[in-house]
Amino acid sequence: MMKPFFKLKSRKELQDILDKFSPLESEVLPLDQAVGRVLCEDVVSPEDLPPFGRSTMDGFAVRAADTFGASESQPALFDVVGEVAMGTSPEGICIGPGEAARIWTGGELPAGSDAVVMVEYTDAIDSNTIEVFRSVSPLENVIEQGEDVRAGQAILKQGTCLRAQELGLLAGLGITSVRVHRVPVVAIISTGDELVPHDQQAPRGKIRDINSITLSAMIRMAGGIPERLGIVRDSSHGLKDACRKALELPADIVLVSGGSSVGNRDFTIDAFRDIEHARILAHGVSVRPGKPTILAEIRGRAMFGLPGHVSSAIVVFYLFVYPLVRRFLGFTEEHDLRLSSITARIDRNYSSHIGREEYLRVSLRQEDDHWVASPVFGKSGLIYPLVRADGLMVIPRDSEGLYAGDQAEVLLLP
Amino acid sequence: MMKPFFKLKSRKELQDILDKFSPLESEVLPLDQAVGRVLCEDVVSPEDLPPFGRSTMDGFAVRAADTFGASESQPALFDVVGEVAMGTSPEGICIGPGEAARIWTGGELPAGSDAVVMVEYTDAIDSNTIEVFRSVSPLENVIEQGEDVRAGQAILKQGTCLRAQELGLLAGLGITSVRVHRVPVVAIISTGDELVPHDQQAPRGKIRDINSITLSAMIRMAGGIPERLGIVRDSSHGLKDACRKALELPADIVLVSGGSSVGNRDFTIDAFRDIEHARILAHGVSVRPGKPTILAEIRGRAMFGLPGHVSSAIVVFYLFVYPLVRRFLGFTEEHDLRLSSITARIDRNYSSHIGREEYLRVSLRQEDDHWVASPVFGKSGLIYPLVRADGLMVIPRDSEGLYAGDQAEVLLLP
Repeated sequence: MMKPFFKLKSRKELQDILDKFSPLESEVLPLDQAVGRVLCEDVVSPEDLPPFGRSTMDGFAVRAADTFGASESQPALFDVVGEVAMGTSPEGICIGPGEAARIWTGGELPAGSDAVVMVEYTDAIDSNTIEVFRSVSPLENVIEQGEDVRAGQAILKQGTCLRAQELGLLAGLGITSVRVHRVPVVAIISTGDELVPHDQQAPRGKIRDINSITLSAMIRMAGGIPERLGIVRDSSHGLKDACRKALELPADIVLVSGGSSVGNRDFTIDAFRDIEHARILAHGVSVRPGKPTILAEIRGRAMFGLPGHVSSAIVVFYLFVYPLVRRFLGFTEEHDLRLSSITARIDRNYSSHIGREEYLRVSLRQEDDHWVASPVFGKSGLIYPLVRADGLMVIPRDSEGLYAGDQAEVLLLP
Repeated sequence: MMKPFFKLKSRKELQDILDKFSPLESEVLPLDQAVGRVLCEDVVSPEDLPPFGRSTMDGFAVRAADTFGASESQPALFDVVGEVAMGTSPEGICIGPGEAARIWTGGELPAGSDAVVMVEYTDAIDSNTIEVFRSVSPLENVIEQGEDVRAGQAILKQGTCLRAQELGLLAGLGITSVRVHRVPVVAIISTGDELVPHDQQAPRGKIRDINSITLSAMIRMAGGIPERLGIVRDSSHGLKDACRKALELPADIVLVSGGSSVGNRDFTIDAFRDIEHARILAHGVSVRPGKPTILAEIRGRAMFGLPGHVSSAIVVFYLFVYPLVRRFLGFTEEHDLRLSSITARIDRNYSSHIGREEYLRVSLRQEDDHWVASPVFGKSGLIYPLVRADGLMVIPRDSEGLYAGDQAEVLLLP
């Protein structure tokens, strides 16, 4: 029986479909586990930061007006009425006219004072009196209460990626945990009667499973949690069982790789079709390599059929799976949902086919003020060419190829 | 007593000092834990990959010469002498002249054959005979034994960062573990009598420790393992004990932060000096913010005194600690030892001081074909300005400032 032709989707069409998946639900994490995660809710400051006026220098808290006009030749005299020991509240101290209190960097400004004179611009006359040689402005060498953020201020928006400084801010406000999007679990199933696990001896006729380790590493690099479910024999029934088991983990994304033969591809599409509530969203994409890619959706989760050849699987992963992992984590177009890219010039003629966007493995080098890309040749069944590649040059769908010196976009492999 | 003036080092001088630290010793990891790590040794392939000639198509293994001249009008006839079932060795099969064997994608090429005819270009005459409509060249639709890599070939060099494709290659060769540089443990000590842990209520006069959480997050982003050792009271003795405890962890890097007052800075330098075998390598750096930075070395490990203000500590971390974490992991200048940077135009006049390289917090936006940087103002004791910042604009040491529209380098905050 003639198999139906693929109705290929363009890369853009498939990306638009993936853009409809929603970020995963939230979990609450302590600050020290939340770096790089995406906030699920707006955060409003519960209090002022700093909670009181603070000195930014070692010196004397004063009323600024009392220093006006002070100079080396005409120092101003102050009575030292106390010292604000570090970490204590200056409760007994109130600075009146002509009075000063010893204070250290970070210390709480006593009542009545509005500035700090650096110790360098003072001299002790006796144990209770100092001379001040320079005037200070009101609020000089002081951080006011709430100057960093105020109680009730909206400080972090939903969708913010938590970097060191965001976490530090939360720590400063006494917020000890945050609600962030959960990390997707990505199940990896390899199919193929010819495969053995990579840590086993391969008898004649069999080869080791490369895709499980490769996909696992890419998932980690994307920020997901890989779950390797091993090798499934070539049968629609066995594959369906494996996918169901993956969904029960529960996995948020199921990757079925291998199945490079026509028969295998059929097993994958049949298995996806047979799973209750699953809908096939794409069967074939007009990219090269990567044409046999399959995408199915099941209750907001995704199942991918990836090409069997490892280098094709890597390209499809970075084009379609990587952005979905990032999307599930809560990242949006404003962040770096897709691989970053540069523009480079190709260093030789390269002919391509009209009708399919091609992703050409290239190594990159810098020459003068621009990047130069050299194609790394090798059949799609090989992996070593990807070891020598720094990126994937995008040859547009309507192009018959590039001439040496032509510019094109290069997606940078992580 | 007058304190001695700092002898400030330039950024370049301090970076040169840090470049003399050696990567950490090695550990052996299974492949699925080694992503992003740096190889400690060259890897030579123990075997051919693939270990036998393989078909890249579903079809028939033949001698290519027997198909020469075949066409739709003049098909060539072949006797089908067997089938290579997936995952089995075609041991009983030897292809002679005019003979063919059924084969699937990934299957082992039988003896005697040197090419595969795609099934689409064949028709079955009877159960033992096919017609072939198109000629194939020798090695067409075939990956030869060792075509990816050969036994004895040097495939990965010491210093290689292990990405998905490198790990996949190792898996394919049956190499199950790799020797990589160990991850540095970075101890974090906060000092300051005014500090309480961020998860505690701060009584009047005290504030929550921001630096521990902030540094911990930056260490994770750099690839290190943070160990928060809590808050130490302001005393040289207590700090020395805390540093010793950190070194006994053993930590590879000790970060002492806080100590923003002059007194505190003295505690840090005194504590470092008092530790046996420790050598002070830098006491003050001519960058702004970050001047009071201290670096000490002890048996190949590093102790940093960071500025007390969190936003200054963040700048110093990215300039000096981040590259050392990367260096300890085995990364070199060829990798991305330092933060990546772009060039941007500042959108207003900004005056700076000659003699100190300044790192100005900026937010970035794209306009037409270039980046525009807006300074994010705020005292160095504040953290919120860093939440609004995307990068640090570098204002050179010999510059009095920038005019609106001037270009400068911007280090991108991770």
